[in-house]
Amino acid sequence: MKYTQLYTKTNKSGKDFDSINATYLINGGFIDQTMAGVYTFLPLGLRVLNKIEQIVREEMNTIGVEVLMPALSPFALWEQTGRLDTVDVLMKTSGANEASRKKSTNEYVLNSTHEEIITPIAKKFNRSYRDFPFAFYQIQSKFRNEARAKSGILRGREFRMKDLYSFHTSEADLKTYYEKSKEVYTRVFERMGLGHVTYLTLASGGDFTKDYSHEFQVKCQTGEDEIYRVPSTGLCFNKEVTPSKAPAVKQVSTDRAEYKEVEGKGMIGVEVLATFLNISVELTTKTMLYQTDDGKVVAAVIRGGYDINEEKLTKIIGCNSISLADQETVKRVTNAEIGYAGPINLAKEVAIYFDDSCQGRVNFECGANKTNFHSINVNFGRDLEMPEKFYDFKVANAGDLYPETGEAYEVFAAAEVGNIFPLNTKFTVAHSYTYTDEQGKEQPVYMGSYGIGPSRLMGVIVETFHDERGIVWPEAVAPFQVHLISLRGGEDKAAALYSQLTEAKIEVIWDDRPKAGPGDKFSDADLIGCPVRILVGGKTEEGMVEWKKRSEVDSQNITVAEALRRLQK
Amino acid sequence: MKYTQLYTKTNKSGKDFDSINATYLINGGFIDQTMAGVYTFLPLGLRVLNKIEQIVREEMNTIGVEVLMPALSPFALWEQTGRLDTVDVLMKTSGANEASRKKSTNEYVLNSTHEEIITPIAKKFNRSYRDFPFAFYQIQSKFRNEARAKSGILRGREFRMKDLYSFHTSEADLKTYYEKSKEVYTRVFERMGLGHVTYLTLASGGDFTKDYSHEFQVKCQTGEDEIYRVPSTGLCFNKEVTPSKAPAVKQVSTDRAEYKEVEGKGMIGVEVLATFLNISVELTTKTMLYQTDDGKVVAAVIRGGYDINEEKLTKIIGCNSISLADQETVKRVTNAEIGYAGPINLAKEVAIYFDDSCQGRVNFECGANKTNFHSINVNFGRDLEMPEKFYDFKVANAGDLYPETGEAYEVFAAAEVGNIFPLNTKFTVAHSYTYTDEQGKEQPVYMGSYGIGPSRLMGVIVETFHDERGIVWPEAVAPFQVHLISLRGGEDKAAALYSQLTEAKIEVIWDDRPKAGPGDKFSDADLIGCPVRILVGGKTEEGMVEWKKRSEVDSQNITVAEALRRLQK
Repeated sequence: MKYTQLYTKTNKSGKDFDSINATYLINGGFIDQTMAGVYTFLPLGLRVLNKIEQIVREEMNTIGVEVLMPALSPFALWEQTGRLDTVDVLMKTSGANEASRKKSTNEYVLNSTHEEIITPIAKKFNRSYRDFPFAFYQIQSKFRNEARAKSGILRGREFRMKDLYSFHTSEADLKTYYEKSKEVYTRVFERMGLGHVTYLTLASGGDFTKDYSHEFQVKCQTGEDEIYRVPSTGLCFNKEVTPSKAPAVKQVSTDRAEYKEVEGKGMIGVEVLATFLNISVELTTKTMLYQTDDGKVVAAVIRGGYDINEEKLTKIIGCNSISLADQETVKRVTNAEIGYAGPINLAKEVAIYFDDSCQGRVNFECGANKTNFHSINVNFGRDLEMPEKFYDFKVANAGDLYPETGEAYEVFAAAEVGNIFPLNTKFTVAHSYTYTDEQGKEQPVYMGSYGIGPSRLMGVIVETFHDERGIVWPEAVAPFQVHLISLRGGEDKAAALYSQLTEAKIEVIWDDRPKAGPGDKFSDADLIGCPVRILVGGKTEEGMVEWKKRSEVDSQNITVAEALRRLQK
Repeated sequence: MKYTQLYTKTNKSGKDFDSINATYLINGGFIDQTMAGVYTFLPLGLRVLNKIEQIVREEMNTIGVEVLMPALSPFALWEQTGRLDTVDVLMKTSGANEASRKKSTNEYVLNSTHEEIITPIAKKFNRSYRDFPFAFYQIQSKFRNEARAKSGILRGREFRMKDLYSFHTSEADLKTYYEKSKEVYTRVFERMGLGHVTYLTLASGGDFTKDYSHEFQVKCQTGEDEIYRVPSTGLCFNKEVTPSKAPAVKQVSTDRAEYKEVEGKGMIGVEVLATFLNISVELTTKTMLYQTDDGKVVAAVIRGGYDINEEKLTKIIGCNSISLADQETVKRVTNAEIGYAGPINLAKEVAIYFDDSCQGRVNFECGANKTNFHSINVNFGRDLEMPEKFYDFKVANAGDLYPETGEAYEVFAAAEVGNIFPLNTKFTVAHSYTYTDEQGKEQPVYMGSYGIGPSRLMGVIVETFHDERGIVWPEAVAPFQVHLISLRGGEDKAAALYSQLTEAKIEVIWDDRPKAGPGDKFSDADLIGCPVRILVGGKTEEGMVEWKKRSEVDSQNITVAEALRRLQK
């Protein structure tokens, strides 16, 4: 392709956007922002996106068959699974003006995911055990009502998505497929050059399973996720589910001081309190009161500096859901205003859970269950019983330890580029989808879902592969393999080489601008980031070209034949 | 591909839908209806759609460069062109539930077309005469708030669209490109096998141009358009713009009878009136009163049986727009209630236009401009002046004549599969898009838009190529070239042939169902409609296969080598 036929231009004096991917992709002429979180893929960008999607497609074809589902769907399908009200990024459509609403007042859901659409289709065609297992996938645009779109094409209101849905006759068969999908996903990211920075990460299973779901996370400063990696095994957890042990508190003294209740009016919050009491935050204690869905009141006690991970806590309690106790309940069980709860002298009805971060402290603080009062110099075994068991219901912090081995986590930011999810029977039950087994009995269908975001991947690749001059595309997704530059006097040679490369089916972009100077052409080549730059004209001798890899500093003068040989291998 | 890996099934006892394309595509397992006008493309259907889109893509690449624009856009872009309120199929998005609206109350337009999006992009990159001409195109899903989606995938609320936009420095350059686009479009439809039933048709230029726009119409019973074709030249008009001359009225008598005003209370409408007066409908007259945008009152007089084409009439009057006169105006100029207007004794301020259908009648009827009264036995030159000129502002009827030659039109139903539109400066002016010419002066940019509907095309192809047993796909868009059937005992041979064909890169679907009988396999092959059916097993001899073209009745026994030779040519 000729540069002048892209009909877009680089903008080397362009402003910096909120992320590296936005800056390089917009200034390089790959994408154009239509509005926050919504982009047009320009000719260069679409080439990259297509390559990413083709790699995804080739790999998905080994475990499923491609379909194309619509963006619109009726409300009824979403009502059936109860997600119409709960998916907080869901959008709907309606007529945009009077004339349109006069034609039809119908509203439709604009799908953010397609479990609701694929399940009835799967059910329509596959009802016998003989039809299983099977999987459908698609690659198309999805829509999410994001409060704040950001990080270029990493988080958009409209974005490209590959979503695959698998169907099984048993949980065991789902698991087998699920494990296979991990291998396929790993291959996808390896093929794009991201293998070395992609981490298979355990994440929340949501309502669907007590097991984890799995995310493929690319280490990346712009990423929104925080990954906790166990150095000795490489095991990775998303912060939201990281099992963690708090590092031991540095003890000031091991002598037990005298238990006291001190007045600290309005001293709520561990930082304020620590300063007021002149102790370290680690010696303060947070006591949070919750109500469970089955009507019990629970106190969760954790040391200052930690937050409570309610998903962990819910599992520990063994109930379906918890919510913060209301004011009335807090007053009843603590005899105090909100903010002064502590584990000593709570009403008998309250079950008290201690996080392990509370362990091993001497002379700690906690709420006194008396408005404006705090207990200090509290010690287990004296002021309150030593708990039978300590739990882990904390939100992990950097510096925390992996409980199994006691080693400190490596913590890094990452962007999620794929996720796989054992949905089990959540959607099939909602759509009354069963199959007939060999004995003629109706049985529940098991389901998994598997996502990859191609447009986000494009952004993550730029975040991963760039230098101060621009993008350094991996070969597999580069818009072109060769960026051909002709300097004055080299036009004819360039035209000949361009034909030769094109005939050899080597993807080449020829910067054929007659008026652009060498400096402009070089810096554009760096910004656009094709793997190889070939220069003809200028000082190159007859039959020779200057060969330079984008990822290397030095160039070489080689023959045209040698250049072709290198490109064809 | 193996039939059992499509994970969909045919439904040979399936019901008939509202159109042939819906019936065969749904029952054949190509598409699934998610809701009225919204479909999922199943594996078979997606293969066909991809082939259609790839043909479109290859042809468009000869005249433009591909991009991918978003489905969402901000209201501001549509306000700028004034189309936010006027495009009556436009949809918008908003949060679908409380939780979503809490995140963001923003609303966006769901694009039904992309002039509003591409024009600012073109403007951003191309401002000098040197940058022109150029064209961007995309292939993606579009959305329309249809009152009633119908005819399978011929008219949907969500559908696939290729839209191309070209930009030019002059109207002449736009015209040159426009003519070239006709050739490219013609090639697209020829490649899909539709060349012989596709008609380049003149259609309305809308607000954009006084010239026609052009539609590519495929003759097709399910089509929504009516085409008027001039037999001697092949020139085609969409009904909406067909120039037409009414055939002469059969005269009962040429003697002028006595002019009378007769009472016919509430006799409004030509049919009712003709019966009441015992005359033919052709002798009745409709007189419609309009107000023009520049404040004039106009009477349009046309013979019974015809409707007024307001677009034609507006052009004849030479104003920008017309609307039916309000009650007050009608009363003022006719001295009567609505329904009794006629060309005799109208207020002087009214300009009267006669359609040519009024010509040559003797003793005709018209409204008497007196409530409940009708003039009969009216004659030009006696009861009212012979008009200086007769016009053509009628909606053409079957049986009408092409004015230039006087020959009767051939009239047929057709489905629009493409259209091209000289937009001129409508959108570039709205977006203040000018270019700098060689003298450094700012000049207006000219623009054209060019659409093709791939999903509709898929439906139109089925409407065109089918028989009573199913679809007969043209080779270029068939989901597979070969439908391989193995009968009992032929499984191993089929497996071997399947490998051979696959290696030779011949697209083959192998009906590998172990339990299906020959009858089922044959009728499925006919319903699905691949160009060639190859049968192994059953009575076929060693080394031989049964070869049958879907479009032919007879089968032949040929060697495997011969089958391969035929498929590779």
